[in-house]
Formats: sequence, C-alpha cells, structure tokens
Amino acid sequence: MMVGNPLQHPDLRYVSAFKSADPIVFVRAGGRDYVVVSSMEANRARTEMMGASILTPEELGLRPAQRRRVGWWALGLARKLGLRRVVAPAWFPLGIARLLERGNVSLRVARGGLFPERRRKNAREFAALCRAQRAAVAGMRAVRALLAASRVDEKERLVLDGRLLTAERARAALRKSAAAYDVLFGEPIVACGAPSADPHQVGSGPLRAGESIVVDIFPQEVSSGYWGDLTRTLVKGRPRPEIRRMHAAVTAAQQAALAEVRAGARTDRIHAAARRCLERAGFKNGAANGRPFGFIHGTGHGVGLEIHEPPSLGTQRDRLMEGDVITVEPGLYYPDVGGVRVEDTVQVTAGGWRLLARCPNWFVVP
Amino acid sequence: MMVGNPLQHPDLRYVSAFKSADPIVFVRAGGRDYVVVSSMEANRARTEMMGASILTPEELGLRPAQRRRVGWWALGLARKLGLRRVVAPAWFPLGIARLLERGNVSLRVARGGLFPERRRKNAREFAALCRAQRAAVAGMRAVRALLAASRVDEKERLVLDGRLLTAERARAALRKSAAAYDVLFGEPIVACGAPSADPHQVGSGPLRAGESIVVDIFPQEVSSGYWGDLTRTLVKGRPRPEIRRMHAAVTAAQQAALAEVRAGARTDRIHAAARRCLERAGFKNGAANGRPFGFIHGTGHGVGLEIHEPPSLGTQRDRLMEGDVITVEPGLYYPDVGGVRVEDTVQVTAGGWRLLARCPNWFVVP
Repeated sequence: MMVGNPLQHPDLRYVSAFKSADPIVFVRAGGRDYVVVSSMEANRARTEMMGASILTPEELGLRPAQRRRVGWWALGLARKLGLRRVVAPAWFPLGIARLLERGNVSLRVARGGLFPERRRKNAREFAALCRAQRAAVAGMRAVRALLAASRVDEKERLVLDGRLLTAERARAALRKSAAAYDVLFGEPIVACGAPSADPHQVGSGPLRAGESIVVDIFPQEVSSGYWGDLTRTLVKGRPRPEIRRMHAAVTAAQQAALAEVRAGARTDRIHAAARRCLERAGFKNGAANGRPFGFIHGTGHGVGLEIHEPPSLGTQRDRLMEGDVITVEPGLYYPDVGGVRVEDTVQVTAGGWRLLARCPNWFVVP
Repeated sequence: MMVGNPLQHPDLRYVSAFKSADPIVFVRAGGRDYVVVSSMEANRARTEMMGASILTPEELGLRPAQRRRVGWWALGLARKLGLRRVVAPAWFPLGIARLLERGNVSLRVARGGLFPERRRKNAREFAALCRAQRAAVAGMRAVRALLAASRVDEKERLVLDGRLLTAERARAALRKSAAAYDVLFGEPIVACGAPSADPHQVGSGPLRAGESIVVDIFPQEVSSGYWGDLTRTLVKGRPRPEIRRMHAAVTAAQQAALAEVRAGARTDRIHAAARRCLERAGFKNGAANGRPFGFIHGTGHGVGLEIHEPPSLGTQRDRLMEGDVITVEPGLYYPDVGGVRVEDTVQVTAGGWRLLARCPNWFVVP
C-alpha cells in the first residue's frame, strides 16, 4: 500500500502513469492494482491507468467528513478488500499509518524499498534517461558558449554584452536552453572559485577567469519523471596550475572508475579505484576546522525516477547489476582553491557500460 | 522532529532556508533548532542556516554503517538531546518512526499540521507569492499572444508559422516565458474542447477555434519555493454560445465568491455563494455514467509553499484568517462541451482581499 502524490513519490510514479498533484491511495493485492482518487479525478484516472481498478471515496462507503481525508480512503479500501495486514514503503506517512492501525490494519515496512526492480532500467526507461541527459548536454553547451563569448575585464571578471557574466545569468541561459526540451532544470550548479569547494553550493555572483567553474546540470523529464545528471568543470582563459592538475587527476580517476564498471562489480571497489587514483596523484583527504577536504563524496549514485537512488558507489559494499543507471563523478575540493568534478551517467551492461549521452570533457574555454 | 528533503517537504522549507536534495533531520527543542546533515553539507548548512546548531553523523557518535542511514541520524540526535518523546508531522516517514520507536523514542503526530501559522503569509512571503503570480501572468500573456498570432484553417484548427498550434507548443512557449523569471512552470494545463471538462487534464494536440481553451498556470519560485496559481479560459474566434454563457456565469460566480472573502468569513459560505450563482444561471450539477458534471470542485484552496494547502474553500466548514493566500476559481464542466474556469489568487485582509497580480479576464481572442 502506498499513499501520496504520484508526482512526489517515485514508487507511485513507477507503478502508475497517473500524474496528480493531490494524493492517491494505491494497493496491489492478489495481482491486481486498486487506486482511490477523488471523484473529480476518476475519469482521468480511468483513462491514464488502464488495468487498475479506480475507486472514489464515495464508492468506499465513507461518510462525507471521511471522504475529505486520504487516510480514510486508505482504510476504506483496506476494508473493502478485506486486508488486515499491508506492506508499506519506508516513506509511508506516519499519520496515515496510525489511522490504519486504529482501524486494525497493521503495516510492515518493506526493507530495501518496495520495488528493488526499479534499479534495472528497461529500454523505455533508458530512452527517457537519455532524453533527459541530452537536455543536460544542451545546457552544458549553452553555458560553455556563454563563457566563450565573454571577455575578461581588468579584475579578471567575465563580461558579456557589456554586463558582468554571473552564475545567475548562466542559470537563466540554462533554463532558456531547456525550453526546447520537455525537462525542468531545477537549480543547476554554476559555482566559481572557492565556493565551488562545497559540492552542492549552487553558486552566485560574477564568474572569474582562471578559476574553476563547476557546472552540474540535473534535468528531470516532465512527461516521464526520469532524470539526467552531468557535470563539467570549465575554466575561462588560463587555469590556475593547481586547477589544471586537479582536473587531470579527476579525469583519470573517472576513467579508472569507469574501467571497473560492469554487471557484478563491487561498488566499494569502484570507489576505491577512483580514490586510489587521486591519492597516487598526490591529492590528500582530510579535514580542517571540521570541514572535510579532498575527495569528500562517493564516486556515484543511481539515477532514475530519483536523482539520487540506489546503488551508491561509496564505501558501502554492494554490487552493480545489469540495467543499473549510475553516475561516475569523482571530484576534488580544497577550500582555498575550489572544486573540480567531472560526471557522466552510464547504464551498466554485462561487460561494461554505455553512456546516456555523449558530452566532450570540456575544460579550458578560450 | 522532521526528517526529509527540504526541497520536497514544505514544513522543512518553512523553518529552514537550507536547500538540499538529500534528507536532513530537524529538531526544535527548548527553543533551539538542531539540524543533522552529511559532513559534506555541513559547511554550506552552517552558512545557510544561521542560528541553528548543525551536527554531522560523525558528531553523533554513530557507527560507520549507521552514519549512512538518516533514521540513525534522527535517533542519534534524539539521544544526544535526551529526547524520549517527539512531535512529528503526519507526513513523517513510517520507516524512521519505527526505528525511533525501537530506540525507545515515542512519536506523537501533530494534528492540523506542525505549523498552522503557515497560513498567515507575512510581507516577505507575500512578495514571493506575488513574484510567482507575476510569472503566471507573463505566461498567460504569452499563450494569448500565440492565439492572437494564429490563423484558423478549414478544419477550425489553429495554425501558426505554417504549423498546427498545439497544446504542447503552447506549453513550450510558457516554459520559454519563464526563462526571464526565477520560476518552474511544471506542466501547465492547456486543454482545449471536450478534454477540458476534466479539470486536471493537461491537454494535448491541436487547439481549435470556437472551443474553450483552459489555461491553468502554477509556477513555483525556485529560490523561495512559493507558488502562484492563475487560470483563464480563452477562445480563439467566435465562442460556441454555451461556452459564452458558461464564461459569463463563472465570471459572475468568481465575483460573488470574492465579495464574501474577508478575515473571519466562513469558507463553506464562500463556496455556497459561488455555487448558488452558477445554479441560478441555470447550470446543473450531477453525474452521468459515474462521471460528475457541473461545478465539480471546490471554490478555492490555500497557496503557499504548497500549491494546494489549507484552507480549503469547499463544503467543509472553516474560517478565513488575515494573511491567508487563497485561490478563487469556480468552474463549469460538461463532458460534451468542455470546461470553463477563471482563477485568481488573493491575500485575505481584515476587510476583504488584495490580488497577488493583476491579469485581465481574457476570454475571446480575435
């Protein structure tokens, strides 16, 4: 049993093509799917969820005050189907669980997720992921074009069309480039200089020559809900020498990690391969004043209906499986220099991997 | 206590400016806010959440395997603070509640939400809502301009630049118009003809002259998370007579509802005023083949960090309060004709209301 907004809960989206900003109740029982939606949505639900039995609160025999509460929809459906025990995802809302328990329906939380099969992306899902990733490549191309068209002022700031080229302007250009695709860009990262040493810093203010500009783009395809994920580190003009060395090491680490990617490979070993490569190039990990530096995150994560989903390519032991879609994104972060990260997204195959979309490893922009 | 992704959970966003695609733990205890984030995010969290105590899993004394599970972060924080009982929102994840309960921390679900004060929007929130609504008006203007620039072919379809003008093209134009604003448009509704009789049908395919084209735009400001909500029903060329009558009645019903809006007003009476107005104009409510027709939804809903939030302006009894931001959006839906809806969003004041953004009640587009 699941209760929630299909656009917000990937598990619901996985089993149902129904798009709703309002919550629904979903139950799979005896090989059949049952869905409760408001009477206003019933017609659309019947069209968009062929095969599922669509019910309305009115059809569950609920009293008017109960019909307004989705928790009662869940209890009404459980009673109609004669369910005394249900399996629920870890994200199941506690308030509704309590209402079900008071109604003598007990819940067991599914360990490892309701749908571990979400990891294996089929051809339709792979196609959606590729479309999202192509939008990310288009966005990256747009940002690179902005840098290429800009000039450098006396304070090493980038200037375009007589105005400072800022992270905000780059993000606006990214949004514009998305208009041709069926994707939402959210808040892509365009972080320049020292702030880019925080991997999730979105970035603000003027972009500067010679500094690393981390551009991390993660569009979600609106119609399907699948994500892309792509990062490049760009430098306008001549890079600071330490950034050049970091970029070479990160690129090599990404290659080292990708060389290990195949169905059955241990995720912690892939991460170790990337880390070893960076350490051998002389890049240290540690912490100063409680702030970690070096290679401070995992090597990658699964991508699908969530931008971060299993598997995780870090210190935790797991194995890749055929059909997994993962990012491979080593990075180096030093508070006094900035960050460098290079990220591509691939699908795991029996013997290796295939890219979702090709994007040159752009770095220096003349 | 709350556990979740701040970008996904409005309650978390309400108390914290921290933007994260990964889950955090939030506890307010003894007048102080405590937040657990991954060590990678700690620096950014300290900068963006001034005033809160930021902790990392490492600082909670968790073992390495526990540090990877946000449920353990919650239990570790509860133990560090000596909490045996916590209050949680209804949406609190059941899986984490179970882990806390096994660790002898009991949870009580807050009735009516953790933060009922979210209903009263202050000046900063009102400004954000106005910005989102202005983006919606700009989007509406863009769609109207497309209709105005189009011509009608021999099959009554709209044609622009030698190609059919479709709902999809109108949505793409909407997205493009959003590029100048800091908003995400999601999937705005552009539904033409009979399909528009389903209020949440997003619409697809060619737009046609004479038919109702329901355009419902609900942008979310990226930086603040606040939404706008605006609907107009447009017709290219000469409207079918029944659509003209429906539009006049819906417009009058919106005025009748707005005339009742002020702090202290009963929400069910506002809804009744709109319904009465439509019934007096001769528009019947009912159902055929299990499908409701007429005025099939409430008159409005709250708008804030959620596109649908309290209060609800339907049959349920409640009272408006000063600072509420609500939509007022009566509509009529007949499967053989289509839908007509007119929606504006207003803030409730002591003596009435004020618009978030002005938008003419566009209808016929020559």
